[in-house]
Amino acid sequence: MARTAGNQPTLFDHVLIAGVGLLGGSLGMALKRGRLVRRVTGLGRSADRLRLAQRLGAIDAATLDPASAREADLVVLAAPIGAFTALLQGMRRHLGPGTIVTDVGSAKAGVLRSASEILPPEVVFVGGHPMAGKETSGVQHADPYLFRGARWVLTPVGRGPAEDEALSLLVRMVEGVGATPVILGSELHDRSVAAISHLPQLVAVALMEAAAALEQEAPGALGLAAGGFRETTRIAASDPTMWRDICLANGPAILEALAAFEKRLGALRRAVQKADGGALEETFERVRRARQALGGSERL
Amino acid sequence: MARTAGNQPTLFDHVLIAGVGLLGGSLGMALKRGRLVRRVTGLGRSADRLRLAQRLGAIDAATLDPASAREADLVVLAAPIGAFTALLQGMRRHLGPGTIVTDVGSAKAGVLRSASEILPPEVVFVGGHPMAGKETSGVQHADPYLFRGARWVLTPVGRGPAEDEALSLLVRMVEGVGATPVILGSELHDRSVAAISHLPQLVAVALMEAAAALEQEAPGALGLAAGGFRETTRIAASDPTMWRDICLANGPAILEALAAFEKRLGALRRAVQKADGGALEETFERVRRARQALGGSERL
Repeated sequence: MARTAGNQPTLFDHVLIAGVGLLGGSLGMALKRGRLVRRVTGLGRSADRLRLAQRLGAIDAATLDPASAREADLVVLAAPIGAFTALLQGMRRHLGPGTIVTDVGSAKAGVLRSASEILPPEVVFVGGHPMAGKETSGVQHADPYLFRGARWVLTPVGRGPAEDEALSLLVRMVEGVGATPVILGSELHDRSVAAISHLPQLVAVALMEAAAALEQEAPGALGLAAGGFRETTRIAASDPTMWRDICLANGPAILEALAAFEKRLGALRRAVQKADGGALEETFERVRRARQALGGSERL
Repeated sequence: MARTAGNQPTLFDHVLIAGVGLLGGSLGMALKRGRLVRRVTGLGRSADRLRLAQRLGAIDAATLDPASAREADLVVLAAPIGAFTALLQGMRRHLGPGTIVTDVGSAKAGVLRSASEILPPEVVFVGGHPMAGKETSGVQHADPYLFRGARWVLTPVGRGPAEDEALSLLVRMVEGVGATPVILGSELHDRSVAAISHLPQLVAVALMEAAAALEQEAPGALGLAAGGFRETTRIAASDPTMWRDICLANGPAILEALAAFEKRLGALRRAVQKADGGALEETFERVRRARQALGGSERL
């Protein structure tokens, strides 16, 4: 499957990116810039948005027809995760044997389940999740360097040689766009992203909502917001549809992370109520060490 | 009280900064750099730390004796807020009539109460709170430009001409170090900072604690943490003693903000539990608009 164009090895002949928004568009740009593929087609529902993606150089061609999947040796699901099932159902009859399908969705267990239920056995599905993004959405914000330095989770399930070969190509693709591949089970992935991404999102939304309510009641309150608050709530401006879909796709893991968080927050609340300075300081000291061990706050 | 040194109007003759850490040290540097005062003395409990502050140019002289307050026309309480009462009690007999006392503490109602109980009536206390800081602490991180662009709350209580005059000098001092004075009642101040600073701190601590617990149980989870998580939890590395003191000093307002936050988070949890995509999207959309209205996430 690997070809060469100039000195660059191409990994795939024809990639279909289903959903050309921030992630899909950035991937198209990165694949083309790295000459990792010969041709990128964007599949979408809006001809206007696809035209924009084409004009921005994210895709070579555009289609509204899921049957175009028949020409691809790699299909990347990059639409909101809630649209995956319909996309897979629309494409299933058109995928040739040996076609690789992956995705960039933020939750993996449900996607893997859908893929194994919907796709024919001769199609290889390997779940993926690039840990990169912005609080903006849409192909107009796409960036060929979005994935540089980011971790890109791949979740093979151990289905045998065809999956091994697909995984190896995807690993090279991930490295080719500047990211670091991380092979992980879908359950651990889902619990991890719930704790480090999905829960913080809900928390940022609730913080912003509570502060906005105080501002309504007592104008001027939000005027004091310094860098810290803006930083903490920056992600609350992220795409509502994408986050709705993530919450629906990763519900159980999010609820588990939320319960763990509320337990800790409850302990802090009780310490404040009892004016228990010792417990507060002990917790702050312990958590400071954990946060320092995690390292810098530079954006990826 | 205003003098001139060269072309610069000095606002105070002799400033005593009680507690020369990040804020106190930065204020000393900024006052000296702006030639807003003739002389800055640092009052502390550690001769070593005071020597370091002096070497860094944060103070002109150092003392371990609260009686040094007698030489000052401005006293700034910049120790952890939990030490204020003892500081005021130690200095009260030494403060001359007309001496102005202010502070840089993160909660105001309790400090105002202590000051009015402890200080003699001929001493003017005006509460203050510069909305600036870092997750680091100590004079070694002091920075004369720390206050530039920051809001600096002042909380006069309407005690008459002496307070008016003190307030006017403090407003000029705040402007002189590059900050914007904000005159605010202590109650609204305390509720605001609870919502935009103290609650986010507790939330960041609980997020970091929950993620660290998952990492213990399932190593690798934290390895996926991208820029967003680091950003959200950056403040969890802040000074434990300072935050213990803030939680003790602003307990009621923090508990009120926490209750408002938990109410919103509870609504989000129920929406996730019920897989109520409509409610999630509606909330995310509404909060996105509120966050966008707040503006950029640049640090101050």
